[in-house]
Amino acid sequence: MSVNKIITIGREFGSGGREIGRRLSENLGFAYYDQEIISEIAKRTSLSEKYVEAIVEQHSLFSFPIHIGRSFYPVADPALDQTLKIYQEQTRIILEMARKSDCVIVGRCADFILKEENPFRIFVYADVESKLRRCRTKGPTQENLSDRELKQKMSGIDKKRANYYELLTGRSWGNKLNYDLCINTSRLDIKLLAQALANLFR
Amino acid sequence: MSVNKIITIGREFGSGGREIGRRLSENLGFAYYDQEIISEIAKRTSLSEKYVEAIVEQHSLFSFPIHIGRSFYPVADPALDQTLKIYQEQTRIILEMARKSDCVIVGRCADFILKEENPFRIFVYADVESKLRRCRTKGPTQENLSDRELKQKMSGIDKKRANYYELLTGRSWGNKLNYDLCINTSRLDIKLLAQALANLFR
Repeated sequence: MSVNKIITIGREFGSGGREIGRRLSENLGFAYYDQEIISEIAKRTSLSEKYVEAIVEQHSLFSFPIHIGRSFYPVADPALDQTLKIYQEQTRIILEMARKSDCVIVGRCADFILKEENPFRIFVYADVESKLRRCRTKGPTQENLSDRELKQKMSGIDKKRANYYELLTGRSWGNKLNYDLCINTSRLDIKLLAQALANLFR
Repeated sequence: MSVNKIITIGREFGSGGREIGRRLSENLGFAYYDQEIISEIAKRTSLSEKYVEAIVEQHSLFSFPIHIGRSFYPVADPALDQTLKIYQEQTRIILEMARKSDCVIVGRCADFILKEENPFRIFVYADVESKLRRCRTKGPTQENLSDRELKQKMSGIDKKRANYYELLTGRSWGNKLNYDLCINTSRLDIKLLAQALANLFR
């Protein structure tokens, strides 16, 4: 088990999980890993960041193996081969990061990948209206979507995250028993909450 | 809406929800209501505390009305009449307590009864093994039960709580969307957590 303090954050799209993670890491002086994981995979595999991100964010049921870290049957398909490589690299990088220093890691099944390191596992969620408001405020790129389209987009992304998590871990995404703390940001002051929670890790 | 700070705590049996509530109230200097509600009902209805507790803890599907606070059809059965009176009194007392001062209220659907007062709603849970350990440590009266019997007792109590909550509120008990914060005490230091959380209410 790692001697480092590790906080993992799973989150519904638009719930503010990333902001909680960033604020916690700032309050505590912990390393913060999110997009950094993509960049590192790209560097190590010599693939473009854009390509790695597409594969990782796609969360497709057929684009990665169930038994990461175990032996694979021989692969003939070069695209599948590359996908496998990306997921293996991601697992390796997350483990390295967690062993290097205290850190906050957002997404990427880090709670499961790091289970031997005894991480503190947070899940962040909110009601649909609140996530919609948040997306409108934080994501100016969503401007051309109607409320209905944006809701569909949000639930589509969460569905992919759930599939990915469940396939990789065999556990149910967002099920409160898989987390130490579940935070509903619908009515919470995220800044205040991050300050209060930081006291758990000092 | 109340100007008071109100914290409501729903909890699985054996999860330590009551301890979190008590510690939060001590850290904050808030009033703490749990058994006090039973005593107050007994005083006002001139029924014995034992009787009131039996009715309230029984959580029977047929022992209370769905539409508390609304008009009731005429009641001929005096036992049912008394049960109705107890539940109406409980609702009234919880509202009075919340309006009197900052407070922590454990159980009794207080999150729902007080929804207009904008309470901070906590749900406390844990995995079965951890609740079992906790019951063994805290409840010496459980000593004569086997693990299997104690697990059955725990799940029976939670089943009653869930039925009671769902019938009274139309919501699903323990569903994370009904709470602001869900706390898994399986691996947490409750004392440390209560200290950290108290900062949210100062």
